[in-house]
Amino acid sequence: MIQKNRELIYEGRLFKVMGVTLQTPEGKDVRRDVIEHPGAACIVPMLDKDTVLLIEQWRIGAKKSLWEIPAGTLDPGEDPLACAARELKEETGYTAGKLEHLFTMYPSPGILDEKMHIFLATDLRPGKTNFDEDEQITAKPFSFRDLRIQLKANNIKDGKTIAALGYLFTFKPWLGEAT
Amino acid sequence: MIQKNRELIYEGRLFKVMGVTLQTPEGKDVRRDVIEHPGAACIVPMLDKDTVLLIEQWRIGAKKSLWEIPAGTLDPGEDPLACAARELKEETGYTAGKLEHLFTMYPSPGILDEKMHIFLATDLRPGKTNFDEDEQITAKPFSFRDLRIQLKANNIKDGKTIAALGYLFTFKPWLGEAT
Repeated sequence: MIQKNRELIYEGRLFKVMGVTLQTPEGKDVRRDVIEHPGAACIVPMLDKDTVLLIEQWRIGAKKSLWEIPAGTLDPGEDPLACAARELKEETGYTAGKLEHLFTMYPSPGILDEKMHIFLATDLRPGKTNFDEDEQITAKPFSFRDLRIQLKANNIKDGKTIAALGYLFTFKPWLGEAT
Repeated sequence: MIQKNRELIYEGRLFKVMGVTLQTPEGKDVRRDVIEHPGAACIVPMLDKDTVLLIEQWRIGAKKSLWEIPAGTLDPGEDPLACAARELKEETGYTAGKLEHLFTMYPSPGILDEKMHIFLATDLRPGKTNFDEDEQITAKPFSFRDLRIQLKANNIKDGKTIAALGYLFTFKPWLGEAT
């Protein structure tokens, strides 16, 4: 697909809607809308090798509170790793001695250009939080055993959190070995 | 949070943008935008206990082709299970003898109300595909061993596919036992 035209339809605080004209491989023009988002850094904070800190916050897309890994939107030009360190500190107060990139994903690539960069944070040191205005955040530690139970029961409903925890259970089985 | 007002800002083919006024627990009014989407059914098609069928399709949100589990948007009033059966048939030609709901997730709940319902499809019978207009879909079988390699290398970048595969590796380890 070749992009022939891209125009702003709506600009909100967190995203833009763009109207795009694409040329198909057959040479036909098709019109699509896409939501532009700056992207996000998402962090799995390990308090120790068996304990993950999740946060609970009210989400407009769910019309309720969800348990999630900490995450936040990239500032213009910001490196995802720097954003991960900043958001971890803002939302939980912790500073990570080590931040490891696990994977990057498109949460809904048919309509949204957001990229989520997922990091594992270890060697945590506590400190003061610094929530964004209008963020109401509660943090709670979960054992790996409890996280498996909550995932299986679908009590965790946030996509990035399900993806990140499934990834850790698959590729980092030595985490949680205390259980 | 209590919703006090909700008004249409933009209506596109696949989503709407709504302007919402919320009242915080402290009684303050805040203005937010949210993207409304009908929701989607997503299917992990198991050709046998070691083989998953993925599809490759060009995605406007990624500006490239992604490998994904089959998925599609719910029709108005459509049950997610019925949608899963329909989309599996349309995109791969297969009919599932068994469709098991694994979990439901919000892919980007800070801006988007889309719910993705993830199903495991087994006892597959082949048939004719029926792609939507302007869908260009290539299907390819992957072994569980290969999927682990592709996930670890982050060659799979679609969020629902990472979440679904991580879930299966965590909770259905007897799948893929031929590897």
